[in-house]
Amino acid sequence: MDIPTYDDVLAASERIAPHIHRTPILTSSYLNQLSGAEIFFKCENLQKVGAFKARGACNAVFGLSDTDAASGVATHSSGNHAAALCYAAARRGIAATVVMPRNAPAAKKAAVQSYGGKIIECEPTQAAREASLEQLIADTGADRVHPYDDARVIAGQATCALELHQEIDKLDTVVAPIGGGGLISGTCLTLSTLAPAMRIYAAEPANADDAWRSLKAGEIVEQDAQQSVADGLKTNLKPRTWHFVSRYVSDILLASEAEILDAMYLTWERMKIIIEPSSAVPLAVILKHRDLFRGQRIGVIITGGNVDIRNCPGCKS
Amino acid sequence: MDIPTYDDVLAASERIAPHIHRTPILTSSYLNQLSGAEIFFKCENLQKVGAFKARGACNAVFGLSDTDAASGVATHSSGNHAAALCYAAARRGIAATVVMPRNAPAAKKAAVQSYGGKIIECEPTQAAREASLEQLIADTGADRVHPYDDARVIAGQATCALELHQEIDKLDTVVAPIGGGGLISGTCLTLSTLAPAMRIYAAEPANADDAWRSLKAGEIVEQDAQQSVADGLKTNLKPRTWHFVSRYVSDILLASEAEILDAMYLTWERMKIIIEPSSAVPLAVILKHRDLFRGQRIGVIITGGNVDIRNCPGCKS
Repeated sequence: MDIPTYDDVLAASERIAPHIHRTPILTSSYLNQLSGAEIFFKCENLQKVGAFKARGACNAVFGLSDTDAASGVATHSSGNHAAALCYAAARRGIAATVVMPRNAPAAKKAAVQSYGGKIIECEPTQAAREASLEQLIADTGADRVHPYDDARVIAGQATCALELHQEIDKLDTVVAPIGGGGLISGTCLTLSTLAPAMRIYAAEPANADDAWRSLKAGEIVEQDAQQSVADGLKTNLKPRTWHFVSRYVSDILLASEAEILDAMYLTWERMKIIIEPSSAVPLAVILKHRDLFRGQRIGVIITGGNVDIRNCPGCKS
Repeated sequence: MDIPTYDDVLAASERIAPHIHRTPILTSSYLNQLSGAEIFFKCENLQKVGAFKARGACNAVFGLSDTDAASGVATHSSGNHAAALCYAAARRGIAATVVMPRNAPAAKKAAVQSYGGKIIECEPTQAAREASLEQLIADTGADRVHPYDDARVIAGQATCALELHQEIDKLDTVVAPIGGGGLISGTCLTLSTLAPAMRIYAAEPANADDAWRSLKAGEIVEQDAQQSVADGLKTNLKPRTWHFVSRYVSDILLASEAEILDAMYLTWERMKIIIEPSSAVPLAVILKHRDLFRGQRIGVIITGGNVDIRNCPGCKS
């Protein structure tokens, strides 16, 4: 199992710089007052494709040799990672193929197509997705880019915490969402090197608490069919992300569905930015555990802004 | 009539710097592609109080002598300007009073109160508002800060175009919304000094086209009771703003209500930022007049982000 190193992060940072935004870090006096802390929001919702996933995908795609790149890239993840992979591939002028169940939402198919990706449909089971992807790779020689269980992807996601650390002095804590663990692993990789005393908290929906259960059990606990409005966070850890989570994460904190949506709308209203439900989990846990965070300087990674605005989840209108 | 000068803008920029955000300038590849132009969005929705109005209000409040400041400030505008004036007054530790009709929306009253402002209610007529404000000023000696017909306010708003000009090279054009004309006057003041060849377009709702009619008539045309979803733009020009509009604005372009809302949601969806309807009028006219703007580098001022998210105007959900 290849575990990325801090040198890989520095290489990723240089490699992806021409292809991503250096996203702004925003603050809100209101949210500082409400939380009793000082929060610095790293706005990856303003990133290319509207999510931090552009970092890992660009690192994987632009790290390929010309020969390998010629065969294209492929994945069977269908969310922000798929869009990011298609974006990166289009920038490099190579093919990207996404295996998707035939009943996938039209919006997800449209996102892949809008970035020039090709869709291969399969039966809506995990086994069919795996089999279709394996067949595709056998046929085309495409490079498989897993959304998080991939050293290149983790090193790419790690550049987000690198920028946060470069721009904001003396952070006490960083809080980021956890799904499969790619972002938090990258965050751990960067900060355990640059600021080993900094606390790293992962924020997870209580409805999809496999990582929380894993940390308590001391080993990966898998849960199927988790359901949460934070739909980017329903995936399970893998050994490569467990490596980082088990070593460097101070704790995993949980938020209910209602707490997540409240934090999301609060951010929309007070910060004037659109964030997706997954991105609201850190603020939700900070507001829920005020005593734990009071008086601290906290970096929060806003992971993405891809939400169906005209059909807002739980919108009270 | 005192007309502000470019020296006033430089003084304002220094005076208000500790009290406002230097807001980010964002771009969107998607909107560039759609418009055929290169658009740089100056994001005053991310400004203090969620609107550029913080600039003018801070310049007026922090420009007062200690003696004058002791009597406080007052206005009878009840939108973003009122919130901004209360914010600035609170920062300086002086009183701010806002005269509001007793049937004003609860949200507007709450905004004023949340920034520590005092509300005086009056009958819901323009005459009653004027009379109440005059009485208040006679009683307290408060300084009247008009939302746009005020040299200090115009000089403050002018700092927005100053930052845009400092950060983005070789703009061909700037487009900003026009209501009473405070922002566009400040924009004219800055750019006619620093970049006299740059074209300045004002964008106005077709439903509240008093400025467009004024420009065509060559004199101020007033219209009462204008109704638009862009509710910050329903006000009429005054001689002080007409001074700038008549001299420096290349043209005023109109957008329908539907075009404004489409541009607003497009910005939410693609740029991941919350903008209020008034802020969407520039993008609406750029998309409507593609031939006029094609191939240009355009600065757009996003004026604010104060919108009732849970009751979005015209929301299709």
